[in-house]
Amino acid sequence: MTSPLSNVALDPKANVYFDGKCVSHNFTLADGTKKSAGVILPATLTFNTGAPEIMECVAGWCEYKLASSDAWQRSNAGESFSIPGNSAFDIRVTEPYHYICHFG
Amino acid sequence: MTSPLSNVALDPKANVYFDGKCVSHNFTLADGTKKSAGVILPATLTFNTGAPEIMECVAGWCEYKLASSDAWQRSNAGESFSIPGNSAFDIRVTEPYHYICHFG
Repeated sequence: MTSPLSNVALDPKANVYFDGKCVSHNFTLADGTKKSAGVILPATLTFNTGAPEIMECVAGWCEYKLASSDAWQRSNAGESFSIPGNSAFDIRVTEPYHYICHFG
Repeated sequence: MTSPLSNVALDPKANVYFDGKCVSHNFTLADGTKKSAGVILPATLTFNTGAPEIMECVAGWCEYKLASSDAWQRSNAGESFSIPGNSAFDIRVTEPYHYICHFG
Protein backbone atom coordinates (compact mmCIF):
# COMPACT_ATOMS: atom_id res chain seq x y z
CA MET A 1 0.00 0.00 0.00
CA THR A 2 1.35 3.40 -0.96
CA SER A 3 1.53 6.17 1.63
CA PRO A 4 -1.06 8.90 1.21
CA LEU A 5 0.11 12.45 0.60
CA SER A 6 -1.44 14.51 3.37
CA ASN A 7 -2.98 17.95 3.27
CA VAL A 8 -2.89 18.50 -0.46
CA ALA A 9 -5.22 20.44 -2.74
CA LEU A 10 -6.27 18.11 -5.54
CA ASP A 11 -7.44 19.19 -8.97
CA PRO A 12 -10.15 16.63 -9.80
CA LYS A 13 -9.74 17.15 -13.56
CA ALA A 14 -7.17 14.70 -14.88
CA ASN A 15 -4.42 15.34 -17.40
CA VAL A 16 -4.77 12.87 -20.27
CA TYR A 17 -1.72 12.40 -22.49
CA PHE A 18 -1.04 10.08 -25.42
CA ASP A 19 -4.67 8.98 -25.78
CA GLY A 20 -4.75 7.96 -22.14
CA LYS A 21 -1.48 6.05 -21.99
CA CYS A 22 -0.55 8.60 -19.33
CA VAL A 23 -3.13 10.00 -16.91
CA SER A 24 -2.31 12.24 -13.98
CA HIS A 25 -3.92 14.50 -11.40
CA ASN A 26 -2.28 17.73 -10.30
CA PHE A 27 -2.05 18.59 -6.64
CA THR A 28 -0.56 21.35 -4.54
CA LEU A 29 1.15 20.99 -1.18
CA ALA A 30 0.33 23.30 1.74
CA ASP A 31 3.46 25.32 0.93
CA GLY A 32 2.26 25.89 -2.65
CA THR A 33 4.55 23.33 -4.31
CA LYS A 34 2.88 21.81 -7.36
CA LYS A 35 3.21 18.11 -8.18
CA SER A 36 1.25 15.47 -10.03
CA ALA A 37 0.37 11.85 -9.34
CA GLY A 38 0.00 9.73 -12.42
CA VAL A 39 0.16 6.38 -14.09
CA ILE A 40 1.69 5.31 -17.39
CA LEU A 41 0.18 2.23 -19.02
CA PRO A 42 2.10 -0.21 -21.23
CA ALA A 43 3.66 1.87 -24.00
CA THR A 44 6.88 3.51 -25.09
CA LEU A 45 6.49 7.28 -24.94
CA THR A 46 8.59 10.41 -25.24
CA PHE A 47 8.03 13.28 -22.84
CA ASN A 48 9.42 16.77 -23.11
CA THR A 49 10.23 18.80 -20.02
CA GLY A 50 9.88 22.50 -19.39
CA ALA A 51 10.98 22.76 -15.77
CA PRO A 52 13.32 20.05 -14.50
CA GLU A 53 11.40 17.03 -13.21
CA ILE A 54 11.96 14.22 -10.76
CA MET A 55 9.93 11.09 -11.45
CA GLU A 56 9.37 9.09 -8.26
CA CYS A 57 8.04 5.57 -8.76
CA VAL A 58 5.39 4.66 -6.18
CA ALA A 59 4.36 1.31 -7.69
CA GLY A 60 5.31 -0.77 -10.71
CA TRP A 61 8.49 0.05 -12.61
CA CYS A 62 9.69 1.53 -15.87
CA GLU A 63 12.69 1.83 -18.09
CA TYR A 64 13.75 5.30 -19.15
CA LYS A 65 16.31 6.87 -21.41
CA LEU A 66 17.41 10.47 -20.98
CA ALA A 67 18.08 12.66 -24.01
CA SER A 68 21.74 12.76 -22.96
CA SER A 69 22.10 8.98 -22.91
CA ASP A 70 21.86 5.94 -25.14
CA ALA A 71 21.27 3.62 -22.19
CA TRP A 72 17.92 2.44 -20.91
CA GLN A 73 17.83 2.39 -17.12
CA ARG A 74 15.31 0.83 -14.81
CA SER A 75 13.41 2.67 -12.07
CA ASN A 76 11.57 0.60 -9.47
CA ALA A 77 9.09 1.44 -6.73
CA GLY A 78 10.77 3.70 -4.19
CA GLU A 79 13.30 4.96 -6.74
CA SER A 80 13.44 8.26 -8.60
CA PHE A 81 15.15 9.69 -11.63
CA SER A 82 15.79 13.28 -12.64
CA ILE A 83 15.27 14.93 -16.00
CA PRO A 84 16.84 18.32 -16.80
CA GLY A 85 14.64 21.22 -17.86
CA ASN A 86 13.99 21.86 -21.55
CA SER A 87 14.94 18.31 -22.36
CA ALA A 88 13.20 15.03 -23.07
CA PHE A 89 13.14 11.41 -22.03
CA ASP A 90 11.82 8.16 -23.38
CA ILE A 91 9.95 5.85 -21.08
CA ARG A 92 9.13 2.18 -21.69
CA VAL A 93 6.44 0.57 -19.58
CA THR A 94 5.19 -3.03 -19.63
CA GLU A 95 2.96 -2.88 -16.54
CA PRO A 96 1.35 0.18 -14.96
CA TYR A 97 4.02 2.57 -13.68
CA HIS A 98 2.66 4.76 -10.91
CA TYR A 99 4.57 7.94 -10.19
CA ILE A 100 4.73 11.26 -8.46
CA CYS A 101 6.19 14.00 -10.64
CA HIS A 102 8.11 16.66 -8.72
CA PHE A 103 8.96 19.86 -10.56
CA GLY A 104 11.91 22.21 -10.33
CA MET B 1 -10.68 25.49 -14.49
CA THR B 2 -12.00 23.05 -11.91
CA SER B 3 -11.91 23.96 -8.23
CA PRO B 4 -9.25 22.16 -6.21
CA LEU B 5 -10.33 19.93 -3.35
CA SER B 6 -8.55 21.27 -0.29
CA ASN B 7 -6.89 19.43 2.57
CA VAL B 8 -7.19 15.92 1.23
CA ALA B 9 -4.93 12.90 1.67
CA LEU B 10 -4.14 11.57 -1.79
CA ASP B 11 -3.14 8.01 -2.60
CA PRO B 12 -0.59 8.44 -5.41
CA LYS B 13 -1.22 4.93 -6.75
CA ALA B 14 -3.94 5.07 -9.38
CA ASN B 15 -6.81 2.66 -9.88
CA VAL B 16 -6.74 1.37 -13.45
CA TYR B 17 -9.94 -0.23 -14.77
CA PHE B 18 -10.87 -1.62 -18.17
CA ASP B 19 -7.32 -1.52 -19.53
CA GLY B 20 -7.05 2.14 -18.66
CA LYS B 21 -10.37 3.34 -20.05
CA CYS B 22 -11.04 4.43 -16.46
CA VAL B 23 -8.26 5.76 -14.22
CA SER B 24 -8.82 7.24 -10.78
CA HIS B 25 -6.97 8.32 -7.67
CA ASN B 26 -8.43 7.75 -4.20
CA PHE B 27 -8.39 10.53 -1.66
CA THR B 28 -9.66 11.06 1.86
CA LEU B 29 -11.17 14.22 3.29
CA ALA B 30 -10.09 15.61 6.67
CA ASP B 31 -13.18 14.01 8.24
CA GLY B 32 -12.20 10.58 6.91
CA THR B 33 -14.67 10.46 4.02
CA LYS B 34 -13.24 8.50 1.09
CA LYS B 35 -13.77 9.61 -2.52
CA SER B 36 -12.02 9.22 -5.83
CA ALA B 37 -11.22 11.57 -8.71
CA GLY B 38 -11.13 9.91 -12.08
CA VAL B 39 -11.51 10.10 -15.79
CA ILE B 40 -13.28 7.81 -18.24
CA LEU B 41 -11.97 7.84 -21.81
CA PRO B 42 -14.12 7.18 -24.89
CA ALA B 43 -15.78 3.80 -24.35
CA THR B 44 -18.99 2.16 -23.25
CA LEU B 45 -18.45 0.44 -19.91
CA THR B 46 -20.47 -1.30 -17.21
CA PHE B 47 -19.63 -0.63 -13.56
CA ASN B 48 -20.91 -2.52 -10.57
CA THR B 49 -21.46 -0.79 -7.25
CA GLY B 50 -20.93 -2.08 -3.73
CA ALA B 51 -21.80 0.99 -1.70
CA PRO B 52 -24.15 3.52 -3.29
CA GLU B 53 -22.27 6.04 -5.41
CA ILE B 54 -22.77 9.57 -6.62
CA MET B 55 -20.92 10.44 -9.81
CA GLU B 56 -20.24 14.17 -10.01
CA CYS B 57 -19.08 15.41 -13.42
CA VAL B 58 -16.31 18.01 -13.10
CA ALA B 59 -15.49 18.31 -16.82
CA GLY B 60 -16.70 16.74 -20.05
CA TRP B 61 -19.94 14.79 -20.08
CA CYS B 62 -21.29 11.25 -20.30
CA GLU B 63 -24.41 9.28 -20.93
CA TYR B 64 -25.41 6.70 -18.35
CA LYS B 65 -28.07 4.05 -17.93
CA LEU B 66 -28.97 2.70 -14.53
CA ALA B 67 -29.76 -0.99 -14.06
CA SER B 68 -33.33 0.00 -13.24
CA SER B 69 -33.85 1.91 -16.48
CA ASP B 70 -33.85 1.44 -20.25
CA ALA B 71 -33.16 5.14 -20.83
CA TRP B 72 -29.78 6.72 -21.45
CA GLN B 73 -29.47 10.04 -19.65
CA ARG B 74 -26.88 12.73 -20.04
CA SER B 75 -24.73 14.14 -17.22
CA ASN B 76 -22.83 17.35 -17.86
CA ALA B 77 -20.15 19.24 -15.95
CA GLY B 78 -21.59 20.41 -12.64
CA GLU B 79 -24.22 17.66 -12.63
CA SER B 80 -24.35 14.42 -10.66
CA PHE B 81 -26.19 11.14 -10.79
CA SER B 82 -26.75 8.52 -8.11
CA ILE B 83 -26.38 4.77 -8.34
CA PRO B 84 -27.86 2.46 -5.69
CA GLY B 85 -25.63 0.05 -3.80
CA ASN B 86 -25.18 -3.50 -5.09
CA SER B 87 -26.32 -2.42 -8.53
CA ALA B 88 -24.74 -1.49 -11.84
CA PHE B 89 -24.75 1.18 -14.48
CA ASP B 90 -23.65 1.55 -18.06
CA ILE B 91 -21.72 4.63 -19.06
CA ARG B 92 -21.07 5.86 -22.61
CA VAL B 93 -18.32 8.40 -23.14
CA THR B 94 -17.20 10.08 -26.37
CA GLU B 95 -14.80 12.61 -24.88
CA PRO B 96 -12.98 12.41 -21.55
CA TYR B 97 -15.48 12.45 -18.68
CA HIS B 98 -13.85 13.76 -15.48
CA TYR B 99 -15.61 12.89 -12.27
CA ILE B 100 -15.54 12.77 -8.51
CA CYS B 101 -17.03 9.58 -7.10
CA HIS B 102 -18.73 10.02 -3.74
CA PHE B 103 -19.58 6.88 -1.79
CA GLY B 104 -22.41 6.02 0.56
